[in-house]
Formats: sequence, C-alpha cells, structure tokens
Amino acid sequence: MADAKRMLGNLEELRALTGDEFGAQRVAWSPVWLKARAWFEEKLKALPVEHHYDAAGNHWVTLEGQSEQALVMGSHLDSVPNGGWLDGCLGVIAGLAVLTSLAEEYNGRPPVTVKLVDWADEEGARFGRSLFGSAAFAGNHSIAADRVRVDKDGTTLEAALRACGVEVESIGDAAAEQKNLAAYLELHIEQGPVLEGLGKPLGVVLGTKGVERWAITFRGQEAHSGSTPMAVRRDALAAAAKLALEIRPIAMKHPQAVATMGSVKTFPGIVTAVVGRCETTLDMRDLDAEVLAAMLREAQEASERFAKEEGCTVEWAKIWSIEPIPFDSKLIELCEEAILETVAVSEKLPSGPLHDAAEVARIGIPTVMMFVQSLRGLSHNAAEDTQREHLEQAVHAFGLLAKKAADWTLAKES
Amino acid sequence: MADAKRMLGNLEELRALTGDEFGAQRVAWSPVWLKARAWFEEKLKALPVEHHYDAAGNHWVTLEGQSEQALVMGSHLDSVPNGGWLDGCLGVIAGLAVLTSLAEEYNGRPPVTVKLVDWADEEGARFGRSLFGSAAFAGNHSIAADRVRVDKDGTTLEAALRACGVEVESIGDAAAEQKNLAAYLELHIEQGPVLEGLGKPLGVVLGTKGVERWAITFRGQEAHSGSTPMAVRRDALAAAAKLALEIRPIAMKHPQAVATMGSVKTFPGIVTAVVGRCETTLDMRDLDAEVLAAMLREAQEASERFAKEEGCTVEWAKIWSIEPIPFDSKLIELCEEAILETVAVSEKLPSGPLHDAAEVARIGIPTVMMFVQSLRGLSHNAAEDTQREHLEQAVHAFGLLAKKAADWTLAKES
Repeated sequence: MADAKRMLGNLEELRALTGDEFGAQRVAWSPVWLKARAWFEEKLKALPVEHHYDAAGNHWVTLEGQSEQALVMGSHLDSVPNGGWLDGCLGVIAGLAVLTSLAEEYNGRPPVTVKLVDWADEEGARFGRSLFGSAAFAGNHSIAADRVRVDKDGTTLEAALRACGVEVESIGDAAAEQKNLAAYLELHIEQGPVLEGLGKPLGVVLGTKGVERWAITFRGQEAHSGSTPMAVRRDALAAAAKLALEIRPIAMKHPQAVATMGSVKTFPGIVTAVVGRCETTLDMRDLDAEVLAAMLREAQEASERFAKEEGCTVEWAKIWSIEPIPFDSKLIELCEEAILETVAVSEKLPSGPLHDAAEVARIGIPTVMMFVQSLRGLSHNAAEDTQREHLEQAVHAFGLLAKKAADWTLAKES
Repeated sequence: MADAKRMLGNLEELRALTGDEFGAQRVAWSPVWLKARAWFEEKLKALPVEHHYDAAGNHWVTLEGQSEQALVMGSHLDSVPNGGWLDGCLGVIAGLAVLTSLAEEYNGRPPVTVKLVDWADEEGARFGRSLFGSAAFAGNHSIAADRVRVDKDGTTLEAALRACGVEVESIGDAAAEQKNLAAYLELHIEQGPVLEGLGKPLGVVLGTKGVERWAITFRGQEAHSGSTPMAVRRDALAAAAKLALEIRPIAMKHPQAVATMGSVKTFPGIVTAVVGRCETTLDMRDLDAEVLAAMLREAQEASERFAKEEGCTVEWAKIWSIEPIPFDSKLIELCEEAILETVAVSEKLPSGPLHDAAEVARIGIPTVMMFVQSLRGLSHNAAEDTQREHLEQAVHAFGLLAKKAADWTLAKES
C-alpha cells in the first residue's frame, strides 16, 4: 500500500525547496523547475527503475514488469509563477508512492510494466503553450508556432528548450514513448469547488471539457457623454453588457456547462464618452460536443440580436478551441470502485481545466483521472490547498485504481 | 450688421494657420495657440478698442461706450489636440464681427461699453483643468491643485503658464475684470445632434447641466473559467453589466438627462478567469439639481442591489461634480427673439458640455448662450462641421441678441 505519510513529506519537501512566500515557482524551463526535477531524480535512486528524458523533455520512469504492456501514471512538476503547492506535483509524487509500493509488493517485478511520467511544461505559463510535452508525445505538437514563441523578457522558447537539452525540431520524436502503453492514470486536485460543495473527498473525472474561446468586438459610435441624448446613442458597451448577462442562461440550461466573459475593454474608455468600441472575450466549455456547439450558436445569435438593438455591429474572431475528450468508460468504472472502497462516496464530474491526460486520451490510450477535493476551489495561487486527510485518501484510492487497471490490462492481454 | 462673409473668411484663415490634416492644434499654452492669439491681435488693429491680458491669461478687448456698464461676448481660441475648426473660436470670431459692426454703427462709441473676451484654456486638454481662465475670473480657481499639475511630458502647468507670462499665484487677480459687467453672451456650436435632428439651425441654451462623475468598483471572486460552476460564481462583471444597462432607464425617465458608463476595466481581465474586480465610471447630467440627485440615488441603489444579487460588493468614489447652472431668464427670452427674427424657428435646450459661460453665470452676471447646429453631433475631432448658411445665420442672430441685451442693460440702468 502506498505510503501516504511519506508522500505528504515529499510534497512538503518540494514545497520548501521550490516555493517562496508567494507560492510555488517551478515554472517550466527555469532553474527552479530543474531543481525540482533533480530532487525527484534523487528520490528514484533507491528504486529498481530505469529513467530517461524523451525528445520533448518529458521524464519517464520505468519499473519493468513481466508483461511489456505498461500502465502509466503521470502529471507535471512545473507550476505557474506564484502557484499552489499541489497543482501538478501531487500527481507525480503520489505516482511515485504507488510505483514504490508496487515495486515492494512484487519484489521489483510486477505483472505489468509500470511507468511514471513527469510531463514537461503542462502550464505553458512562460511561453503560452500549455500541454507542451504531452502534446509532443501525442504527435499534437506545434513546432512552427513554437519556434517563434518568446517570453516577456524576449527569450525564445527555442533557446529556453536548448538550455534544458531539448531541440525544438525534434520534439515529435517523443511519440516513440507511445509504444506498449495500455492505460494512463492521473491524479490531480480538482481546482474547482464541486467536490467541496458536495462534501466528497474524491471524484472520477469523465473527461476534459471542450473549449470554445472567442474574441467578440462590438462597434457603435463614440459620442460626447454630455451632448448626446440617450435615444440616439449607439453604445457598444450596452450590447456587450447584454451579452455578458445572456451567456449565463445559455450555459445554465446544461448541468455542467460554463460560459465566461473574462475581459472587457472599452474605447475610447474615458468617463466623458459613450463607448464606441467594446472588445470582449468569451470562453465556453462542456463535455458534450453538441451542447458546446449549441451554446456557441446561441451566444452568436444573441450577440447579433443585441448589436442590432443597440445600433452596433458585432464581429467574432476565434482565439482557440478544442473538442471535448471523454475518458475510457471501463477505467471510469474502475476509478469509481477504487474511490468507493476508500471513502464510500464518489462523484463523477468533467474537468473544466485541461490536463495532460487529454493529450494521452486523444490518441486512443485508455485514460482516466481522479480528482481530490480543493479547498474553496482556489488554484494557481499560494492559497491553493487540500485537507491532509483527503490527500492521504487520494493516494490510497489511486493505488487501488492502479492495481485494478493493471489487472484489467493483463486480462485484456490474455 | 455683422459681416458674416468676413467672419467665415476669418474662420478659414485661422483654420489654415493653426490646423493640420488631423485638425485644429490650438492647445492652450502652446506655440500654436500663441500664434492664434497673435493673429487675433492683428485683427484688432483697425478697431477703436483697448485690449489687454488679465492675470489668468484671458484676453479682454474693450470698445468703450457711453455707459460704463459693459456687455461682454466671449469664448475661447484654444482647442483640443486634433480638434475641430469651430469649437471655441467661432464664438470669439463671431464676437469680433459683432463688435466691429457695433463700432461702425455707433462711430466708435456705442451706448453701452462692449467687451470681447478670449478665455484662456477652456479645454484643459493638456493639464486636465477645464475652464482655467474663466474660473480664475470667477474666483473659482484651484491654485493649490494647479501648482502640481503636469502634462504627459512632465512639464508643470506652472512653467507652461510662466512661459506665457502668467504667474499661477496671481491668477485670482483676474477677478478685477468682473467690474461693471452687466451681461455675458456666448455663441458656440452645439457639439451634439439635437438641433440637426429637429432640423433647426439655432437654439437658446437654458444653462449647463449639472454633472455627477463617479468611479464605481465591483468586487467578486476571481475564479477559473473552466472549473467554477455557474451557480457558485461571484462575477463582478455581471454586476457591472447590470448597472451599465440600468442607468439607461434611470436617465430616460427625464427628457434631457443623460447617463454614461464610459469605461469598464476587468481584473484579472484574461479569457480564462471569472472577473474578480470590475472598475467602471459613471457620468450623469441634468439641468435640474433634484433630477440629478434622484438619478444618482437610483443608480447607487441599483448598484447595491446588483452587487448583492451577484455576491459582490460595490464601492463608489467621486471623481468630480458640478451643480446645474441655469442661465438668465430675461436673456433666454431675448435670445429666443433674436433667433426667431433670424430663422423663424427656435429651440430651448440645456448644454451637456460645460462652457466658460457657466463660470460667468455662477457669480451672478446675467448670462445666456446661443447654439448653432452641429453636423452629425461630432466635435473634438477634425470631422466637426456646421453648414456655412447656419454659421451666417448664427452671427446675424448673435448680433441681434447683442443689441437686445445692450438695450436691456441700458433700460435696467435708467
């Protein structure tokens, strides 16, 4: 059984080593991140494992089993700047605990091969490219775009990678690691308030939601706030305000959909002028592709109606989108069993945030994630936290899931 | 009768001398503004007038009459950067035409003294202090604040004034010019779309609207756009959007009131986060102080209701306010007569924008303004325009008003 106390000790050790008063500072490709990875390598020394870095900088640890078929656990050690102490590294450190317990239980040679992967640059915090390493592994890389990425200090992604021994031209070679992978498991904090609201420590993740991310610009007529009667105004802010409110009922028709207007910019944006141009952003998510498409359609129709009502025009420009990625139904079942055996209650929920697991699932490797409750739904800042008891329950349940998934893998093989 | 053709010629001459492809560049205390003033001094040479600059940089031209009681016409030669060709200078140049015709008609000595004033820095475009010269004249100056004003290049207002021969400590001495002033008349373009909408060339201004200008900040909870269910969000933008829409019916209950949300800022203001803080501005105006107070109260109540509905807080901070300043009822009557005798139709309307006339009226000098129609309501940019025919009608009607006001002044004296 995974050693939960030691896992908690490791989490605290990493926090002390790579965090400061503002939070975790393990930004990918930075010296602090490399320090975290060196610390993690030290932890492997006592284990009967092989480990190496692939062409995209992902770190693979292998405990060879009787079968070549491999069960993989993974997450990421990198964090956002001023990040939380659990986001990402929990999955790697809990995976290490489970791998260690399996090595002990089977005297260094379990029935299936067990792997642990620390994906490179999940957050994309410095260069704006999330899921860097797992996307390269999945053949979903973006080398042309990556070549021109620059951080706020003018350093290119290419130079930052090279300093860590990664050549941007070759990152696609990470796909070689796909060989013999039978199942992928990832433990992560929820980063939202759902499990806490339900009073449940753990949940099964059904998949990652699809995302539609758009820039929406309303154009009316800039006018003097004092001399322009209300009735003749063409107020771009009014049209945008109507949309900001309307996206909420559009999303709330669906139990797990979300829609967010995160940014509003007004031009000229001065106290004495009616807004002539209003730039907004919209982020919509759902696990069901048809629901997501319907939400997008309804929001677009509403925006056109509001623009017309206010004598404005509206323009939509896509920022980014990704389809929903559902996880494996059998692994979802096994994950629920493992949770119920640990804490007697479970919950199935989609993930709003993206995770490396989405890239793995995308190429057909059976995948599931387990969520452990977050306190107050806070993440990506120093206030991120989870009850210690829930972390212990999480690593226990995750260990059970690993054994169930290993058994399932063997059963499929025979 | 005022020479309308010569006035149009003067307007075009000044435009060519002090404008460029982007518009008028007569920003107060700048070399181009000084060039405009020097040009204007040249125009005075043929006239039997005394002229001087007062302690605040206002330029006074006096045609001495049989009575010491003076009728004053005024406006400002300064413009915003990239301004229009009529805002401000029309009133000075039309005033010059009327003064010239009175000098001719009465052989250099009319029954009342006639003055023309070119106020210094009406626009406040460079240092953010509107009505600089007229406020100093009215004893409504703000020397303590003026001493620390700086333009965007770091030049102090104090230094800019000194370069034009004005000492900030002494600007209050401009109040000496108040002596014997019996009435004040100002012709200005409307800068709004009301007269054009009604198909009327000219209008009588009832007064300048009071203004309530506030910064309103809603605070909710920043949250992840993917992991935070709709039902638990505390979205500061939603509360602000409700207020942006609600201020409209609040203003539209009153025929001439206006309410504008001109600026919205979202924090953190990124596509993937629910807005935690939303900073907005509100500008409300009406000619009736009670109406304005009621509007402010209703907007404040609405903002508190919306904050509560959205789980947010709201804070109001005053930016600036001014009370409504009604013009003189007798002069309003005379102005309407002059307009009706010129173009057979008139309209009474308040001014949304502020004008130097407000400072003059504030100290009890009987005051009225006449508006001439603006095309498309545009002002403060190069597209600002008025039909030539309307400008000719304006100077004609303004001349009639001056004679009526002079007669009224004499009648009061006797």
